[in-house]
Amino acid sequence: MPDISALLSPKSVAVIGASPNAHIIRGRIMHVLGCHKFPGNIYPVSRSNDEINGLKAYRSVADIPEQVDLAILVIPAENVADALTDCGEAGVRAAMIISSGFAEESGEAGDALQDEIRAVAEKYDLAVGGPNSEGFANMLAPLCATFSATVDNPDLPLVPPHRSDGYIGVTAQSGGIGFSFYDRGRPKELPFSYVMTTGNEACLSGLDFVDYMLDDGKTEVILMFMEDIKNPERFAPIAEKALRAGKPIILTKIGRSEAGQRAAASHTAAMTGAYSAYKAMFDRYGVIEGYDIEDIVDVAAGFSRYRNKLPRGKRVGIATGSGGGGGWMADSCEAAGLEVPPLDAATRAVIDEFLPPYGTSQNPVDGTAQAIRQVGYGRMAGMVAQSPEVDSVIVVTSARNAAGYEREEENLKQVAAESDKPILFCSYTLTRGSAMELLNRAGYPLYTNMRNCARTMAAMADYQAFRDRFLKTPEITTTAGGTKEKAAKLLADADAVLCEYQATPVLAAYGIAVPDSRLAATPDDAAAALDEIGGPIALKVQSPDVLHKTDAGAVALGLNDAPAIRAAFSSLTENATAYHKKTNSGSPDIHGVLVQPMAKRGQEIILGINHDDAFGPMLMVGLGGIHVEVLRDVAFSPVPLTTDGAAQVLDRLKGRKILDGVRGAPAADIDALLDLIVKLSQLAADHADTIAEIDLNPVLVHPAGEGVSIVDALIVKRDAG
Amino acid sequence: MPDISALLSPKSVAVIGASPNAHIIRGRIMHVLGCHKFPGNIYPVSRSNDEINGLKAYRSVADIPEQVDLAILVIPAENVADALTDCGEAGVRAAMIISSGFAEESGEAGDALQDEIRAVAEKYDLAVGGPNSEGFANMLAPLCATFSATVDNPDLPLVPPHRSDGYIGVTAQSGGIGFSFYDRGRPKELPFSYVMTTGNEACLSGLDFVDYMLDDGKTEVILMFMEDIKNPERFAPIAEKALRAGKPIILTKIGRSEAGQRAAASHTAAMTGAYSAYKAMFDRYGVIEGYDIEDIVDVAAGFSRYRNKLPRGKRVGIATGSGGGGGWMADSCEAAGLEVPPLDAATRAVIDEFLPPYGTSQNPVDGTAQAIRQVGYGRMAGMVAQSPEVDSVIVVTSARNAAGYEREEENLKQVAAESDKPILFCSYTLTRGSAMELLNRAGYPLYTNMRNCARTMAAMADYQAFRDRFLKTPEITTTAGGTKEKAAKLLADADAVLCEYQATPVLAAYGIAVPDSRLAATPDDAAAALDEIGGPIALKVQSPDVLHKTDAGAVALGLNDAPAIRAAFSSLTENATAYHKKTNSGSPDIHGVLVQPMAKRGQEIILGINHDDAFGPMLMVGLGGIHVEVLRDVAFSPVPLTTDGAAQVLDRLKGRKILDGVRGAPAADIDALLDLIVKLSQLAADHADTIAEIDLNPVLVHPAGEGVSIVDALIVKRDAG
Repeated sequence: MPDISALLSPKSVAVIGASPNAHIIRGRIMHVLGCHKFPGNIYPVSRSNDEINGLKAYRSVADIPEQVDLAILVIPAENVADALTDCGEAGVRAAMIISSGFAEESGEAGDALQDEIRAVAEKYDLAVGGPNSEGFANMLAPLCATFSATVDNPDLPLVPPHRSDGYIGVTAQSGGIGFSFYDRGRPKELPFSYVMTTGNEACLSGLDFVDYMLDDGKTEVILMFMEDIKNPERFAPIAEKALRAGKPIILTKIGRSEAGQRAAASHTAAMTGAYSAYKAMFDRYGVIEGYDIEDIVDVAAGFSRYRNKLPRGKRVGIATGSGGGGGWMADSCEAAGLEVPPLDAATRAVIDEFLPPYGTSQNPVDGTAQAIRQVGYGRMAGMVAQSPEVDSVIVVTSARNAAGYEREEENLKQVAAESDKPILFCSYTLTRGSAMELLNRAGYPLYTNMRNCARTMAAMADYQAFRDRFLKTPEITTTAGGTKEKAAKLLADADAVLCEYQATPVLAAYGIAVPDSRLAATPDDAAAALDEIGGPIALKVQSPDVLHKTDAGAVALGLNDAPAIRAAFSSLTENATAYHKKTNSGSPDIHGVLVQPMAKRGQEIILGINHDDAFGPMLMVGLGGIHVEVLRDVAFSPVPLTTDGAAQVLDRLKGRKILDGVRGAPAADIDALLDLIVKLSQLAADHADTIAEIDLNPVLVHPAGEGVSIVDALIVKRDAG
Repeated sequence: MPDISALLSPKSVAVIGASPNAHIIRGRIMHVLGCHKFPGNIYPVSRSNDEINGLKAYRSVADIPEQVDLAILVIPAENVADALTDCGEAGVRAAMIISSGFAEESGEAGDALQDEIRAVAEKYDLAVGGPNSEGFANMLAPLCATFSATVDNPDLPLVPPHRSDGYIGVTAQSGGIGFSFYDRGRPKELPFSYVMTTGNEACLSGLDFVDYMLDDGKTEVILMFMEDIKNPERFAPIAEKALRAGKPIILTKIGRSEAGQRAAASHTAAMTGAYSAYKAMFDRYGVIEGYDIEDIVDVAAGFSRYRNKLPRGKRVGIATGSGGGGGWMADSCEAAGLEVPPLDAATRAVIDEFLPPYGTSQNPVDGTAQAIRQVGYGRMAGMVAQSPEVDSVIVVTSARNAAGYEREEENLKQVAAESDKPILFCSYTLTRGSAMELLNRAGYPLYTNMRNCARTMAAMADYQAFRDRFLKTPEITTTAGGTKEKAAKLLADADAVLCEYQATPVLAAYGIAVPDSRLAATPDDAAAALDEIGGPIALKVQSPDVLHKTDAGAVALGLNDAPAIRAAFSSLTENATAYHKKTNSGSPDIHGVLVQPMAKRGQEIILGINHDDAFGPMLMVGLGGIHVEVLRDVAFSPVPLTTDGAAQVLDRLKGRKILDGVRGAPAADIDALLDLIVKLSQLAADHADTIAEIDLNPVLVHPAGEGVSIVDALIVKRDAG
């Protein structure tokens, strides 16, 4: 593994292709580099200049007198691999390739150029970012190896001087978006550590940089803009590391829509996977998805400040001098899933001391402009925070100018330092002048968007609760000895498609209860099975060629006597054959007819596994019937799952409450369902290389204590083609 | 009706309570008034100053030598009524009461003061705004009769000089919020006509001002911040007037949450009604609800510019130089309910001429930075707009500075003028300097929030489609002669609660099909009814004291023979009596047992009417069972409804598709359901003064052509107490 620190925190830098012309990218980079006091040496490499912006230029990286850590490449794509080789030979340890014209272009030439880069990088163990990148900025070095105009102001410190913790690290495949997080966040007084724009990710990926930042000892919040994922196998371990460390990842994954996928595919040569699988991975590891740049930056502002003081619940106290603003914030909080409960009498009594008759301490606490002038927002927030009824406080204010806050600055600082609950400020007016700086210096994030403020508090409370639960969850137990091998043999011996009679033994190997069924080869066999099983029974044609059995008329239900069974056997197989022939030449391969006891009634569930190209087996669970078909009420998760994990997945269903029993129905056997999900997830995890798909549809969940019935089962192997 | 123009557009102004001290509200108002060149005279009225800010001050409004149109009152609450009387006597025509200390305070004293104001205003036909208000601004006068700091910059024109249409009028009960719309919108180069903050609305309400603005010949977009509604009967006509004129109302109504209702009630003495009723009114008249201040201002920006060029559909073309930004916008568009379809081949061929190999014309059109430099955003947007596949265009750009747009300014203007489709710009970076002004001057709204930009385009397309449908909808036909009178008599003769046997004749009067039922007084009566009706039948106890018949065990289903019916009659009445006695002394008033044919199976619907205190009868419709109980899938509407209106209400159900037949079920008889809804809505409208509640629960909707069955019916009169 190459050393990413040589890339992000080099001691010296060469710019290959440097130019003094600030109107072109090669010159913009030199200009931006010069805007900040990078303590190391910067060596322009140029064929046509002896000096650039006062720095001696070299013909080649080999001519540079010092061993350089990082080379920034801004030369035509076709020259990059050679230049990179020169770097490797000269002992350079890292390269940032700005040049475009690689895999993002149509055709194979770009791919080939990118392969060359990768080969050179591997040969010399170079840490390489890009190509097709806007570069990066290390705000703490400071080093701005980019042409982005967002960091070309020499008068603005890259990090607000009053911040020395809660650093935010950014990785983005899009340069414009990556630096826009900084562009939006810096005016909000947020401290960034790095902005890394990774472009095509020929070598190092966004995840690689996230992994590095998690260990750098500074970065505590990660922002990602993701178009695809180059090394999906690293996602789970890195996301888990972040979660365990309490360093939230806030990201957007492009490609939720078809048009978004088209854009991503063309833009950075990205192959975007199924969004539902990404979503499942995010849900599993508490990764927070952002809606837009402002939203992501605003959520980051909360975590940056309160990473170690997250709300322990969803109850918010609102303090304001504006009744209208307080009411709107209350609505915004409840829309975000928070609660705004009345305060307790003791707290109200303390607050009431300061309120005029037309104020109220109920919650929202409308201090009125008069009381706010008297006690200040800081002390008012402090009083509200004392209430045992709330886990956090939002102050709704007008931060148009700093005058009011200046008067109470010491109180604001004291409350921020002493309160053990997070306090966010939100202004309904835009800020002017130094209000933003002053409130942040005093210790508070200041929002100018009510929805984002409420949503941030909700995200922080959710993250805290999720992380607590995650850290408590015991490790997943491994599969019992022999089970995996037994199932593997069944799978290996089977054809590509396992009909129910073949699939259920695989399930049974994992301790999953399956119906007591018989495969009948003839009508008489089927009739005989009735005696063994007892009626009423169901008949189902078993054929890898007839998977939609109901549509094909290849299922009969509720049969109770031998003549009916014999007749049904024949008609079902005839139906199946006719159905198959409608779209195929030749007869279907019918293995027999499965004879099965009718399942008791129960709540219908669909349960399945699908192999995602990026993340492997994904479990899907949904309430059956209209819930899946009309309301699309399904949830996904990577596997395996613990019981608690399975419960969390179930909780994501909008209709979850139905399982608790509604309209006089008894509560369903949730424990049995969770047990089934856990075992199925273990099976899918153990055989991820073999199994493409498992469908248990439907599963009937009986009343509590009465278990579940798998009414149909299908397994498709990955070699099914 | 007093003359609101004397308030909003006075020729001369008196400030009663004026002060030279700009640190107090009485002086702030004088200061702010002086920041803009109001062409009329301003007369300070003060007991302690002879001159204020260079203006001669008067002891009383009676001393002013000119007849004054508007008096601004900033004096203690207890003096306001007298001062207002002085104004009336002096011929003043309007008053803006800034003073607080009225109904927003606890206790009755404030209410009484407010009643006094109202009496004086009526006596002298004064147009009175407030009290407890932050005043108002007429941006075109210009006149800023407020202490708001958002309009105290004499160097910034209140209206951007390049705008002379698309004016935005604001009314808000909260002063801070009202002026914050301007504070946010002015930097986005939006033209405002008025900001009116109405406070307690003792006399004129927000709706009164909206009504005025709709007729002022200037205002074309209305923003409202509403805590409650003082004259709800005016909402429907005013909202309809706005919709017919194509002047959208964009608003937030506080009190969606319980805490929000608490805040509103305390803040401006507002009694907030049920949010579902407000929502129903908004849906009925195409009123657009905003999520936060930024969102509302951003939506207004779109309408202000494109009121006469709204998108004719939901298909968006995206043009960008940033692949990442384009992809994110595509996702944002689809999340907002828009479509981003591939462009047609002819349009693509035109665009491809300008694209490098790594660009794409599919949609999003990633022009690449290179092509954008060459052709500019304007021409690129113009080319995309030519596609017959799109109804609108969004340009995703970095508007960090104006340099790029300056070079293509003429092209931008030309495309804006010539395109017949709306084009929005959205920047992923924040704007600096003049980019916002330049793009707006060229004719484009510029967004800095992707989500809001997409949501604005969706809101404009929805509004256009809704308005087209609304204008096409024929007028509601009136009830057939005699029907209303017949139902009125039935209702008048009935007690407060009409059980099913009493309610169905009222329904039948409106042509609603009801089951052929018999009220049986004895077991023998019930058994005899079987012969008349034919089995199987249902028995239901009819008692105004036992409304939860199923819970009480007062219903028997599917009875087919006389002995069973006799037995059931006795046990049901016993059950009903026992159930009633559990919580009441004395026996229930049992009118008999209803004998009714069993309904055929069908899709379960609940349908009802509830009288809302603000807006009168509200129709509710929902899919029955879990849809109501777990998923809360219900929709509300004011009455009466046309068939098309009823269809729109049904369309708001998330599970609406279930009625079309899913999982092999036949499509339900939608026509019969719509007919029932229309008739029920007419009944509710005709008897709004009498009926508090109608419950048809459940209604079974049979397969197409087979009608609906009302399985239970209840009417509660408004005098039920």
